[in-house]
Amino acid sequence: MNSAVTEEPLYVGVDGGGTGCRGRLENAAGDCLAEASAGPANLYQQREQALVAVEQCVDTLLRSAGIGPQGQSRVHAGLGLAGAELPSARQLVAGWQPPWASVQVVNDAHVACLGAHQGQDGGLVVVGTGIVGWAIRAGQGQILDGWGFPLADQGSGAWLGQRALQLTLRASDGMVPETPLTRHLLARFADNPRRITEWAATARSGDYAHYARTVVEYADQGDAAAETLLQEQAREVGLLVQRLLDMHASPVALLGGLAPAVSAHLPAALTRFLVPAREDAIAGALYFIRQNATRSEDSIRP
Amino acid sequence: MNSAVTEEPLYVGVDGGGTGCRGRLENAAGDCLAEASAGPANLYQQREQALVAVEQCVDTLLRSAGIGPQGQSRVHAGLGLAGAELPSARQLVAGWQPPWASVQVVNDAHVACLGAHQGQDGGLVVVGTGIVGWAIRAGQGQILDGWGFPLADQGSGAWLGQRALQLTLRASDGMVPETPLTRHLLARFADNPRRITEWAATARSGDYAHYARTVVEYADQGDAAAETLLQEQAREVGLLVQRLLDMHASPVALLGGLAPAVSAHLPAALTRFLVPAREDAIAGALYFIRQNATRSEDSIRP
Repeated sequence: MNSAVTEEPLYVGVDGGGTGCRGRLENAAGDCLAEASAGPANLYQQREQALVAVEQCVDTLLRSAGIGPQGQSRVHAGLGLAGAELPSARQLVAGWQPPWASVQVVNDAHVACLGAHQGQDGGLVVVGTGIVGWAIRAGQGQILDGWGFPLADQGSGAWLGQRALQLTLRASDGMVPETPLTRHLLARFADNPRRITEWAATARSGDYAHYARTVVEYADQGDAAAETLLQEQAREVGLLVQRLLDMHASPVALLGGLAPAVSAHLPAALTRFLVPAREDAIAGALYFIRQNATRSEDSIRP
Repeated sequence: MNSAVTEEPLYVGVDGGGTGCRGRLENAAGDCLAEASAGPANLYQQREQALVAVEQCVDTLLRSAGIGPQGQSRVHAGLGLAGAELPSARQLVAGWQPPWASVQVVNDAHVACLGAHQGQDGGLVVVGTGIVGWAIRAGQGQILDGWGFPLADQGSGAWLGQRALQLTLRASDGMVPETPLTRHLLARFADNPRRITEWAATARSGDYAHYARTVVEYADQGDAAAETLLQEQAREVGLLVQRLLDMHASPVALLGGLAPAVSAHLPAALTRFLVPAREDAIAGALYFIRQNATRSEDSIRP
């Protein structure tokens, strides 16, 4: 190997969140050299440990590709990490000095959006336990909503689960008709509505989101209440999609566990602007670092 | 005074909640002999202290009427106390031995409902910080909703305040149009939506309900968003009213600080069953004890 080859840049894309981080190593030509994963890397939840997990992920990638630690200085790393938009995370990253040629950190929604649109501008709505919108215009990202449950996050999985339990309480009061869904949910609480309110006293968004899946299942079986709730959810999500279109952040990719159920209930006026995600968030992180590596090197080597 | 006169029964009605209790003393003929108030008497919040406050209230009534402590054994007390429907409150009351001829304790909504309908059957919806429905049929009370914020309590003041803040966040994201209401609310948080979510992390129902009044004020000034929120609220309250009608608990009285705003937005199909409260909750407590004093004496003097 001559020196020109050993100095060839390496690109790493990482998608990190509270359950783990996953990365991919590519050469300058875009060939995949290795894939690897490491521990949780949510900058809000894991803080310094998130950065340690990313370093471990890159280590593993280099070793898997047979390059080893001496390749570190050739790495340009693009990281999409949950929580990166928060001021505390920015501070954390500013004090970080990984042994790489360059590193760029951004919100995980940003790389998911880039991946979905293969590095181009566009919009993204992620409907999981929470809900968040993301717009990329002229390469710049902007967050929409994502203010958090229970105050906000309307249209999220947590919100859908909460609505289902509210409906269950109302059905138990005889204010709305019972359906198989409300009977099922009440049975989960020993047919005692008071147990629902006791449970709610300590329930978190993930606990509520657990019941979102039940709503989808019952809607699939034709349950009228479940169907109405999914329509309500689609109205809420539709507001986010419409806002992205108004911002010219289109087309829009709909991701997250509840995306299929939601898109089936969106009006055609919106669905015609929806596109499936063309690549994943790791690919987005690679687009991101390829677009920004030079800029980063400028800032790291003044 | 002969013995027959001194043995004439005395009736006390008390309406008690978390901010205080108020009582009225009447003779058998229904003449008001005295009115008095005492400390907070919510059986869930104050527990034993609620019963102490009621005893103090009765003491004051007897002294104000010039009867004094020797009148205690002639007192038949009807108490409408917040939280009385809870199992823990029933236990508390079961162990209580006030020095009266008889005492009957019931939910404050029950006596409010009896007062509103002058002792007759009927329905009640109270729209304040929380929301609760009450039905009296054949003299028997039944609670509706009141499951508590934020899981339930849709249509309450806390819920209305929360909806207004949700709308403010959406307006700040450009997802719905700004209005004078949303601009005012955002300004209350230094024009920083993040401050709203920080505030929400520790906000309680009373804190949210505080903003319900703002919504009503802006609706009065023609604010489109405030008007829409009041219509949403009326739909929620309308479900409770409709349920009371379906249960034949009619007519329905609408009470609480938000009742005027709500009734202005209810459809005519419901408002024609609404009646103003004819008397207050203390009067209701007096109806209650006059209807039940004999039964109680039976149980106290077997």
